[in-house]
Order: sequence, then structure tokens, then C-alpha cells
Amino acid sequence: MLSQAASRLGFDVVILDPEENSPAGRVSRGQIVAAYDDPTALTVLGRVCDVVTFEFENVPAASAEQLAGGGALVAPGPTALSTAQDRVLEKTFLNAVGATTVDFVAVDTLEDLTAALETLGTPALLKTRRDGYDGKGQVWIKTAKQAAKAFAEIGGRPAILEARADFTRELSIIAARGHDGAVAVYPLGQNHHANGVLATTLAPAQVDAATTARAREIAEAILEGLDYVGVIGVELFDLGGGDLLVNEIAPRVHNTGHWTQDGCLCDQFEQHIRAIAGWPLGPTEAHAQVEMTNLLGDDVDQWPALAAEPNARLHLYGKAEARPGRKMAHVNRVSRLA
Amino acid sequence: MLSQAASRLGFDVVILDPEENSPAGRVSRGQIVAAYDDPTALTVLGRVCDVVTFEFENVPAASAEQLAGGGALVAPGPTALSTAQDRVLEKTFLNAVGATTVDFVAVDTLEDLTAALETLGTPALLKTRRDGYDGKGQVWIKTAKQAAKAFAEIGGRPAILEARADFTRELSIIAARGHDGAVAVYPLGQNHHANGVLATTLAPAQVDAATTARAREIAEAILEGLDYVGVIGVELFDLGGGDLLVNEIAPRVHNTGHWTQDGCLCDQFEQHIRAIAGWPLGPTEAHAQVEMTNLLGDDVDQWPALAAEPNARLHLYGKAEARPGRKMAHVNRVSRLA
Repeated sequence: MLSQAASRLGFDVVILDPEENSPAGRVSRGQIVAAYDDPTALTVLGRVCDVVTFEFENVPAASAEQLAGGGALVAPGPTALSTAQDRVLEKTFLNAVGATTVDFVAVDTLEDLTAALETLGTPALLKTRRDGYDGKGQVWIKTAKQAAKAFAEIGGRPAILEARADFTRELSIIAARGHDGAVAVYPLGQNHHANGVLATTLAPAQVDAATTARAREIAEAILEGLDYVGVIGVELFDLGGGDLLVNEIAPRVHNTGHWTQDGCLCDQFEQHIRAIAGWPLGPTEAHAQVEMTNLLGDDVDQWPALAAEPNARLHLYGKAEARPGRKMAHVNRVSRLA
Repeated sequence: MLSQAASRLGFDVVILDPEENSPAGRVSRGQIVAAYDDPTALTVLGRVCDVVTFEFENVPAASAEQLAGGGALVAPGPTALSTAQDRVLEKTFLNAVGATTVDFVAVDTLEDLTAALETLGTPALLKTRRDGYDGKGQVWIKTAKQAAKAFAEIGGRPAILEARADFTRELSIIAARGHDGAVAVYPLGQNHHANGVLATTLAPAQVDAATTARAREIAEAILEGLDYVGVIGVELFDLGGGDLLVNEIAPRVHNTGHWTQDGCLCDQFEQHIRAIAGWPLGPTEAHAQVEMTNLLGDDVDQWPALAAEPNARLHLYGKAEARPGRKMAHVNRVSRLA
């Protein structure tokens, strides 16, 4: 979707992806089939591209560093990537720029975990510091007795223990920042997760002015704190009354921003390309109410019924294999703004 | 733009185009670089594709026939293509299905032309029967004395002489028909040409109910008369009071339908892919008022200013060379529906 947006703005796109005929490669000018950390492939990529970006945050930060070190313009920069890849660094950064999170403690050993549980109390959420997304690599601890089992469950790896947030709902905000420091922020989305994976986003969310203002303030603080260039997704816990906690940041276009494709003149994908290419940022107002629903695994078999829904717009990713839980497509159901 | 729409619906696209790295090839799974009438290339194309379509009407009808004869599903079919390629066949067909045109006479020789000028009077428009678009291959004849010069100017080729239409404005209608005979029609656009080339389309056009009804009736008669599958563009002369003449038909997505990209949930490109792939047709209501402006040749150098306009959406085609008059891009300026 990023590649299509770039092509529509006249750019040629080259994809680096280890999978032959990847979903992005099949709609792009070229593809380099190689691992994300292949030094030769990275050198070639840096030479043929005016700007390099990424669409998921598990690209090794070292690859972004090699590209930037070799003189390529990488946006967002390697720092944004490495910050988002480590949950302890991420939350430390967020609190430093005034974007409050739940209380947390870094955990390297079982002893650390036991001490952390005393500090934060139970229930608390144990997550690996790195990797893991869509609910993978995390486990709830309900009593201190479960510490050893939980630590084993996440593989005894460096971890973070997070206090439970007492939130009423999950929101997210999609924002962009240009090379010139200009910031553009989309209306908030309200998210519903199922089994740790995003199921739906409803946008624009019904929010009061204080919540909107606070979300924008948070997004701006994060973008400036990271000297960020591109689109970012910020997941928020809504505590009510304009109080928001940041759950996590995604240094890329974000699943909770897919609604912008059918709700805004300039969607998050075009916005990201505009930002990294040094174009002026596009408008972010919504012209429609959108409910975005992910189609995971076999859900994609519903496509004939969805294609026949008069106010639905279907986006299929062209992935060959519908593995259970794999994001295969999404549908935006569009209605008039409330 | 067709290829991108198809990819978004999950299809893989292969382009046949004689130009290496063609605008469509650069956003598609694959490209066969060959002439449009290369028999081997056509055989390969027919074998790898579930359905074959075309995006401009100067593809040889014989190529469509070879593909269809070899068992490929070609949509629209060869008959639609050959009818639209010959102005005499086209106007004869149109009148046969009740889609009135200006009066016309087929012209093969200078003698024919002299006789035709007596029948139709002057001024009259002499056009080659085949080829020629965007004002090429046509010349106005103001007095009978200009006949020989005019016939020489169009190369003495088989031609058509058309009476002048006394119209107030040019409209167009974009419509689609599925394999099942279902028809979907977009709101009318009002077009402004400059130097024989489309400059702008304003849509939805301000039209009365009688004109809308007549335009829909015309579109349906044409689609059914050709047993057409896919999107068609129909250019109309508005005589006022619900009276419309058909100027010409384009058996493909049409420049005057580009406004649908930013004015409709399902644009003409997705609609065409839905139609030819046997999907249900998508919705055609407009959610915005759009003014589409073509950027020809050096006009494309205006892109930085256009990219900064808050309500403009820019579509750049990725063509390498901005030859004078070449369609390089278009911009949709979007506002609220009146």
C-alpha cells in the first residue's frame, strides 16, 4: 500500500524482501530478494534509492544504521526504529517526553521479576523486551506465585513487567512529521482487539475536546523527541477525562490507520511518502465515518459477500497463503460523518 | 491505475506493452515487452491471464480476436473494440440502438466528400475513420471549396464527414456492465477541452433530471447493444432540455472518469476490474464535488504547488519524458457536494 501510494506520486519503488514475489514486490518497479540484514543487498538498496523507509518495525536497526552510515537517507531514522524495538527504551523515552505510560520495571532475571512484582503488584503483564507483536511473547501474571512459570513461558529472555492500566477503551492516533518539522495529525481511532490482535478500528472516534487535545500533544512530543520523519502510530489507553497513557508506538504506517484510505483525501500511506520525500504534508480531516475490520486467515474467504456490500471497500493484500491469524486483507465500511 | 486497482483487489497483473518499464509495468507483477500484435506475446498473455483487458482503444482489434479465439476471456470483447475503432461503424451502431449522433456520411474519395458536403452543408467536420484522438486526424471544413485541401490534410484516407452539432456544453457519462448484465452508472461530468484535448472535468455536473435520465438510457443502450463487459466512457453533446447527442464512445476507463478516484468510494478503475473479473459492481454515488485537471507536457512541473494545495490530490503517471501535450498527470480538486 505504501508502494502504490509512492507510484501514484510518480516515484519508482524498489523493495527489499526475503520472500520472492512478496506482496509489495508484485506492485513495485523492482525487488531485491535478500535477508533484511544482507550487507550487499543493503548497499545496492542505498545506492538505487533517494530515500529508504520500512513498513514493519522488526527490520534490524543495524540495517537502518548501515544504510544511514553509507550515506542513504533513511526515514524514519535508525533511532526511532531502535527505540520502538525495545520496550524498556520505548517506555523510558515516552515518559521522558511527557507521554505517560503504565508503571514498568526492566526484568533480566527471575529475581528481577520477583522484585518487580512486589513493586508493581498483581495483576501485571510480562513481555519480552524485544520482538513479539499481536499478543505474542507476553503473559499476564495474576499472583506472585506464577512468576517462574511466566518467565519460562516467555523463554527467560530480557523482559519488561508492566502494571495493569485501568482504562475504559483503546484509542490510537496516526500522525506524521516532515523533514521540516511540520506535523499533521489524523482524527483518533477507537480500537477493538481480539486474542491480542487488532480486530476493528472505528474512526473518527467519539472523543471530547480534552482527549483530542491531549492525544495531539502526545503525538507531537513523541515525533519531536525522536526527530521523527514519516508516519507513526501511537496506541493509547483512555483513562477518561482527557487522561491518556501511551501503550506503544509503531514507527511506521499502522493497521489502526487503514481507515484513512476511505475516510480521508490523503491516506496514511500517501502521507508517509509525502513526509519522507520532503513533500508538504497532506490534509488529515475525515470526510466519512469508517469502520475498518481486519480479515485474518480464513476470514478472507468472506470476500464475495464483502465485495457485494454497497458501502464496503475491500483491500486484499495478494498474500498467497492464508495461514491462521495472518493478516490477509481488511475491509473499510464507510458511512456519513456523525 | 487499472493495475493498481486490480492489485488492491488481490489480483496479480501482467502488462503487455512495447515500452520497457512502462507506467503500468512498473506497478505490476510482470510485463511482457512486445508489440501489441506480437502473436507469441499474445499467446503467452492469454495463457497466464484469467481475463485480459486493455486501457486504450488503439490496441489492434485483431489482437483481441486472436486472444479470444485462443480461448482467453477478453473484456470488453473484440466487437466493442472494433466498433469504437471505426467512426462510421461506431455512429451507425449508436444510431441503431437509439443513441442519436450528429448526421454523418462515410467518405472514401474526394467525390464522396463533395457529395457529403452537399448533403450535410457547412461547416462540417472531416475525420479519419480510424485512429486519431485528442483532435488529431480531423479538420473543420467551412466552405465546399476547402474540400480538396481538407481531404489532403487528413492524408486522403477513408474518412467520415460529420455535421456540426449545436450544443451548449460537453458532458460525459462513465458506466459499467458486468458479465451478468448488471449496469452501474456514475453521475455525469461536464468537460472542457482545449486544443482538442480534455482540459478539465467537473463532476457531478449540474444537470436536470431529464438529462440524467436520458444519459443513463443512452449508456444502457450502448452497453447492451455491444454486450459490453467493463467500464465505458460516453462523450455527449448537451443540446438542452434533455436532448443529448453521442459524440463518441471509448471502450475503456476514460479520462473524464478520473474524478471518481477522489469523488467515489469505488472509482472507475476498481469498477472496471470488478466488471471484468465477475465481481459485483461497486457503488457509483459521489461523496464529493471534484474538478479534474489534466497536466500536459510541462504542466507537470507545477507539481510542487499542487502538492501543497490542501484540497488537491495529485496523480502522477511516472512517465519518464514530458513531451509537449503528453498526459503526464492529473489533479483532482475536491470540495463538498453542492
